[in-house]
Amino acid sequence: MHESTLLSMVQHLAATQNRRFPQVLVGPGDDCAVLAAPRGDQLLVTVDHVVEGRHVPALGLNPDATLLDLVARKTVARSLSDLAAMAGSPLACVVTACLPPEFAQLAAETLARRLHAWGEHFACPVVGGDIASFAKAAPGPVTLTLTALGLAHPTRGPVLRSGAQVGDDVYVTGALGGSLASDGMGRHLTFEPRVAEGAALASALGPALHAMMDLSDGLGVDAARLAVASHVDMEFDAGAIPISPAARDLRGAISDGEDYELLFAVAPGAAMPTLATPITRIGRVMPGAGRALLRSPAGQTDISTSGWLHGG
Amino acid sequence: MHESTLLSMVQHLAATQNRRFPQVLVGPGDDCAVLAAPRGDQLLVTVDHVVEGRHVPALGLNPDATLLDLVARKTVARSLSDLAAMAGSPLACVVTACLPPEFAQLAAETLARRLHAWGEHFACPVVGGDIASFAKAAPGPVTLTLTALGLAHPTRGPVLRSGAQVGDDVYVTGALGGSLASDGMGRHLTFEPRVAEGAALASALGPALHAMMDLSDGLGVDAARLAVASHVDMEFDAGAIPISPAARDLRGAISDGEDYELLFAVAPGAAMPTLATPITRIGRVMPGAGRALLRSPAGQTDISTSGWLHGG
Repeated sequence: MHESTLLSMVQHLAATQNRRFPQVLVGPGDDCAVLAAPRGDQLLVTVDHVVEGRHVPALGLNPDATLLDLVARKTVARSLSDLAAMAGSPLACVVTACLPPEFAQLAAETLARRLHAWGEHFACPVVGGDIASFAKAAPGPVTLTLTALGLAHPTRGPVLRSGAQVGDDVYVTGALGGSLASDGMGRHLTFEPRVAEGAALASALGPALHAMMDLSDGLGVDAARLAVASHVDMEFDAGAIPISPAARDLRGAISDGEDYELLFAVAPGAAMPTLATPITRIGRVMPGAGRALLRSPAGQTDISTSGWLHGG
Repeated sequence: MHESTLLSMVQHLAATQNRRFPQVLVGPGDDCAVLAAPRGDQLLVTVDHVVEGRHVPALGLNPDATLLDLVARKTVARSLSDLAAMAGSPLACVVTACLPPEFAQLAAETLARRLHAWGEHFACPVVGGDIASFAKAAPGPVTLTLTALGLAHPTRGPVLRSGAQVGDDVYVTGALGGSLASDGMGRHLTFEPRVAEGAALASALGPALHAMMDLSDGLGVDAARLAVASHVDMEFDAGAIPISPAARDLRGAISDGEDYELLFAVAPGAAMPTLATPITRIGRVMPGAGRALLRSPAGQTDISTSGWLHGG
């Protein structure tokens, strides 16, 4: 609803404002903000919501431990994916939970324990937080936020959305689509944030790794964001896009969202490293004005707005 | 409700866990976490909620600009007060807003603008955030979080709750009580976070500034937390506590909460700097097991649990 209008306004405000604050190297609009600390550390910071009924299924007032574990996992993994998108490494995180007034005490404790456990699992320890409950007169669903702090890659620095260049090859990790299974319990709850992959790509490719982001809203919409930030078009080959077994078809791979795979642009001819996670070349960077395009035998389709389904 | 039980559990979990992560200098339980970045920067991080109906009055779906400005101000100021409590300086912040599905677009934009403006005002620019709306099937009230990043004081380092020593003098900035006026529009919406005062105290007192915190839940409850962290008792003179004109009486000054003044323990005999904000010596640190005590002509009262009213 409000998000996209507000986001562009916020980016405009921030661009104006952050010139006054030299510690702000990158403000709103990329996967993380980048901050310069006085002794030379380059910090990444990102925050995301996990809201019951929006990002995770309805929980009720006494969810079972398995479901709480998945919610905690996604809460940590979602912000970690933003660090991965910049080739950063995790430093620590803080978490908030606002709970319904009647939420079971034991469930709240389980949720806190699992947030800590997943923070530890992903090498991003929970170092603080705030737990509140909604007022009885104005209750709401379980609402979590997680702010992850990270460090920029020590040699490549932060990999932004804005660095793609005409002629670059475009790659994606893993396979796309079908993350939001019809029962609400799909891969979006269990995905592996690509932190190791992002860092390995930056280490191996160095300055040839021009631009990167993680895919959260679908290849079409997200690639258009990278294209806008880089003042280029991104063109994908319909036959090259890796489709997840969970996706119904190519349309799903392009528009389903919640993939949390990395999309990245690399100087042509750079030697790609071999990673345990599959990497697929799916297209190229073209001169253009910020579109994501799909090339198929039938011609070229603009998939920038809401993916193939609505754009085609 | 859940907060206190969960907090102690979280501190226990974190104490166990953070030993594995050498970058965590201070984990949950103090006003901020303290992190060591590889090049030597000491970072502070803190997060707080501002929830409609709990921390600010009911807003409705189309609040006016004046009220939104106060909400934005408190959202920023609350986390800044935590940086002040450690004598830190602000670096940047990220903010989240989860809004009712029917919240007015113009009001959401005003809120975003005012959050940016207050961040800038307090030298803590908003560098990122996440805007979400509750699902229509599971709506909730306006729920904001703000994560503030700061830098530890460059010479004194972070001033923790755990450093108070027997024999220290105990001081407070400003005057206490009456912040939560009966119409909900009291000083808790307009307080000045004591960032400059905290830093000035650390600069002037150096290692003689033993311990510090900000007062959010009331002098009694909060002082007991500092006392527990320092393994001491804190004893206050009833006649010395500065009572805000808005407070009904001494009980209010001790238990009302939301003062956001600094409470700090200083080596006896240290020369106190002169600040624009009044500083009052209100007591001393005694041997003990973590209590806040009030000394009056009638004797000694334990004000640790919920302030004078319930503890006396």
